[in-house]
Amino acid sequence: MSHSAYRTHYATEVSEAEIGNTVTVSGWVDRRRDHGGVAFIDLRDMTGLVQVVIYDEEVARPLRSEYVVQVEGEVRARPEGNENTHLATGKIEIVAQKVTILSKSDALPFQVSTALENESENKLPGEDVRLRYRYLDLRRPSMQRSIRLRAKMSKAARAALDDMDFCEIETPTLIKSTPEGARDFLVPARLVPGSWYALPQSPQLLKQLLMVGGIEKYYQIARCYRDEDFRADRQPEFTQLDIEMSYASQDDVMAMAEQVIASVWQSAGYEVKLPLPRITWHDAMDKYGSDKPDLRFGNEIVELTDYFTNTPFRVFQAPYVGAVVYEGGASLPRRQFDAWQEWAKQRGAKGLAYVQFTEDGELKGPVAKNLSDEEREGLKAATHAKDGDAVFFAAGSRESSQLLLGAVRVEIASRQGLLKPDEFALTWVVDFPLFKPTDDPDDDDVAVGHSKWTSMHHPFTMPSADWIERFDQDPEHAMSDSYDIVCNGEEMGGGSVRIHRDDIQDRVLKVLGIAPEEAKEKFGFLLEAFKYGAPPHAGIAFGWDRTAQILAGVDSIRDVIAFPKSGGGQDALTGAPAPISDDQRKETGVDFDPDDE
Amino acid sequence: MSHSAYRTHYATEVSEAEIGNTVTVSGWVDRRRDHGGVAFIDLRDMTGLVQVVIYDEEVARPLRSEYVVQVEGEVRARPEGNENTHLATGKIEIVAQKVTILSKSDALPFQVSTALENESENKLPGEDVRLRYRYLDLRRPSMQRSIRLRAKMSKAARAALDDMDFCEIETPTLIKSTPEGARDFLVPARLVPGSWYALPQSPQLLKQLLMVGGIEKYYQIARCYRDEDFRADRQPEFTQLDIEMSYASQDDVMAMAEQVIASVWQSAGYEVKLPLPRITWHDAMDKYGSDKPDLRFGNEIVELTDYFTNTPFRVFQAPYVGAVVYEGGASLPRRQFDAWQEWAKQRGAKGLAYVQFTEDGELKGPVAKNLSDEEREGLKAATHAKDGDAVFFAAGSRESSQLLLGAVRVEIASRQGLLKPDEFALTWVVDFPLFKPTDDPDDDDVAVGHSKWTSMHHPFTMPSADWIERFDQDPEHAMSDSYDIVCNGEEMGGGSVRIHRDDIQDRVLKVLGIAPEEAKEKFGFLLEAFKYGAPPHAGIAFGWDRTAQILAGVDSIRDVIAFPKSGGGQDALTGAPAPISDDQRKETGVDFDPDDE
Repeated sequence: MSHSAYRTHYATEVSEAEIGNTVTVSGWVDRRRDHGGVAFIDLRDMTGLVQVVIYDEEVARPLRSEYVVQVEGEVRARPEGNENTHLATGKIEIVAQKVTILSKSDALPFQVSTALENESENKLPGEDVRLRYRYLDLRRPSMQRSIRLRAKMSKAARAALDDMDFCEIETPTLIKSTPEGARDFLVPARLVPGSWYALPQSPQLLKQLLMVGGIEKYYQIARCYRDEDFRADRQPEFTQLDIEMSYASQDDVMAMAEQVIASVWQSAGYEVKLPLPRITWHDAMDKYGSDKPDLRFGNEIVELTDYFTNTPFRVFQAPYVGAVVYEGGASLPRRQFDAWQEWAKQRGAKGLAYVQFTEDGELKGPVAKNLSDEEREGLKAATHAKDGDAVFFAAGSRESSQLLLGAVRVEIASRQGLLKPDEFALTWVVDFPLFKPTDDPDDDDVAVGHSKWTSMHHPFTMPSADWIERFDQDPEHAMSDSYDIVCNGEEMGGGSVRIHRDDIQDRVLKVLGIAPEEAKEKFGFLLEAFKYGAPPHAGIAFGWDRTAQILAGVDSIRDVIAFPKSGGGQDALTGAPAPISDDQRKETGVDFDPDDE
Repeated sequence: MSHSAYRTHYATEVSEAEIGNTVTVSGWVDRRRDHGGVAFIDLRDMTGLVQVVIYDEEVARPLRSEYVVQVEGEVRARPEGNENTHLATGKIEIVAQKVTILSKSDALPFQVSTALENESENKLPGEDVRLRYRYLDLRRPSMQRSIRLRAKMSKAARAALDDMDFCEIETPTLIKSTPEGARDFLVPARLVPGSWYALPQSPQLLKQLLMVGGIEKYYQIARCYRDEDFRADRQPEFTQLDIEMSYASQDDVMAMAEQVIASVWQSAGYEVKLPLPRITWHDAMDKYGSDKPDLRFGNEIVELTDYFTNTPFRVFQAPYVGAVVYEGGASLPRRQFDAWQEWAKQRGAKGLAYVQFTEDGELKGPVAKNLSDEEREGLKAATHAKDGDAVFFAAGSRESSQLLLGAVRVEIASRQGLLKPDEFALTWVVDFPLFKPTDDPDDDDVAVGHSKWTSMHHPFTMPSADWIERFDQDPEHAMSDSYDIVCNGEEMGGGSVRIHRDDIQDRVLKVLGIAPEEAKEKFGFLLEAFKYGAPPHAGIAFGWDRTAQILAGVDSIRDVIAFPKSGGGQDALTGAPAPISDDQRKETGVDFDPDDE
């Protein structure tokens, strides 16, 4: 498919086999060098580079960086000693016979040349400039790789799902506002003045309706929307690989999802060993201080609550005490430990207690002197530390202490260079509670109901089999059939077995404090659908931007999105959002007043 | 992949090979018959039906239509004479050993049983009821077929595009309002009060930016939005297979698109012969009275303007006279010809002149007596009619007469049963004018600019090579490099070579009456992008709902959309659009007043 009106070959298709042949290539002037009156042009297209030699100075003179040119010429071997082994086309060059300028370029706001690719990314301007000129930023080889990898991933996911008889279905995006936790983007409906559509936070209810509709195996790479306050690595619109199955258990969904993951990782050249490990939510919190543990490295949290039962140290007389070892950390200078205190305070902790086991077996650090002799004696064994290690402690409520130690654990690994972007530690986290307290300070969601309990996943999650009869009597301890897929400390996706019976759904809504009238008004259609023979069903959704970011090994989801928005939901390139005209506003109907009719 | 927690086999996987084995199936009770105290259940899942025999009356008693059941039982051959040759599983049945009711069903608002499939669709309730209970409607085999065909089509299109090295890219849907002709849906931006996003009418400008960004070959199955007034077969949100290529000519795009079409048609079991025929826009209008001619049948319009140059008949003393033959139409009763007059008046015509050539060679009909002897004499030859045919005439302006005759031609074919849904006459329509008059009464678009000319396709369409220098001096006759793909009288898609130079774009915008400041404000970002080396590019977009409708052979695009909206953009199932709460409204920021700050 390389032939077109403008070329006979892509740049990298021009091989030694073409020597002596005339070819036509088209692309950008990636770089130009002049040597003894001869111009050497690196011509760049979507496949890579090829060298063009122009002997005619008149022809070569006007050519500048990022001009679009069409070159017809004869292929020849590069003179001995001039080969470029770093380039696929490094053994040949095209001697230009005819050069046509298809399009000129003004001086660039920043350089996009492939030649700069292996130099430090620090040469790049700030992200605001990159986004302002996204069409230039996209020409850079690293952006091209990320965007093309994402396409490969989608292809691989679809191939796996097609193989398993899943049917791709497009669900509507002008829907009714549904209570999924975050704020909806709203769209005024001109034809029904005073009424609004909502853009979907996910196709959750729609895919459940598809199950009631007999589709049995559904998927969609779906655009979703959440109108949240600015957060560094969130986008107002994002993409979800959304999957739902009828007649499926939690294990069925997990086995299916593992096939998808293996296929996607394979598309990037990585083998994933199946089945993936599973860890319970409780274990993840206990061992890694996170519900999305980074398992690229070990260094588990050590619980010392019992060890310090009778401690004289007031700080450790707490419901929970835990520790994380910093291997080789004993020899760090004092100012680094001071910096850790600051680091902990930024996370809302009072500080970060620590001890050092020096190379010669001594116990040092501010905590040491507060402990009993016995505690000091056994501490190395209790924390599994060695001489030369430091140990950080946290004490207080179980959850907040564990979260702090979890963050310490990852920060240590980061400083030790253990967070390699091309190593992937995939794991399932299972056995989540059904509910969590509404006042959870880490919760970024708008509370759905009006009770002290809110859903850990969402209101359509099935209680575990042994909790179905009694989850509403003991919401605090009720467990659910839900699961998250985690990679390298990031939540890649999650799902659950869904409620398919209106009686159970009614009871869950009651725990959440959603009154029957409110439930009926908001999603009565789902409850009604359940009255006509709903199969049991379960599903999962992958955050597709995040998954792409992890697999591409890049720092931000913005690097795997062609046209992302910056903070505040603004698009620096097009200027969206923007004011609208009075006529446009009038037509939206937002100022409609029923009393005027 | 048939094993899951709820089944060992899909219904249609239970074959004669399983006789004597125990299997578990799950699905709906499609139909129940009772015979001598034994219950025979047709169990339905996504693959089809299998018969379950229940001897235990206690077990069978509660089972009703559309209950969801899990059945474990032994497979046996059906007794001789009881085989059902219409059914894949017609030679076997499952003798139930264990029946579990997974979900019950209330009495249904309408029947969805496969057993009714081959009966007249007239048994279906009105579409309003079908949409209100879409999850039931989707269970019907004909809906399942259409929805699943659509998934196959998307898969086939992607496979063809992947083979040709196209890269799938997701473009944003919260964008800036762009001037593509129709009204935008608008979304208030809470974080920038007073500002709004628009939902895209198409990814047109974004895909052009991707070309400037070096993607070279892009595609996307993209959701698009148009806030139009209600029209029978339009949806406020619709899907487009959107494609764009750099370094491509019109022929390159058409060759690529033909590969996609062949792949898609093949997925439904049809062979498409390539290359597809091409017809110019002028020829299509002259011969078929339509820019989207139905070529499943011939019966071309015959122009008689010259023939009637000196006619004594006042009606035919017009800039244009044309005719369409109604084969065998001479013997139709008078009241049918009267009905044709009504039919024509509903289309805005004054009536429909006609003559009849009777089987015995006579010329009859109201027009006959108005013609000269010579005209009567030669009329049969001039119109290519035979004895027994009728001929309809239209006279007046060329375009309106041709459009009327085009509609007559299709209506005749419809009455003759020539419009077969499983025959596909694909054709390209090429050589479109660049502009059309703004006051075109057939135009449903909001005028983009403020001149007497508007774009035939859109403002980014490239003038033909020989018009580039002078299109603005003669907008009436200027031609463009654009093309439509038409099937069976429906426009399936269209595209064009795009302008990639800011100087040409500026001149086109000037013809359209868009002032430089306005252009800059609305899409200055595109004009600016063209300053940094834009490759020549061209593309096409398929209306994917329409394409699916044509290939599925169904009457409405709503039959190939899982959850379509009804007239006025309403969703009978969920009740969208709906009023929002005062808090929600406040948060949208639509009532933001900068003076209050």
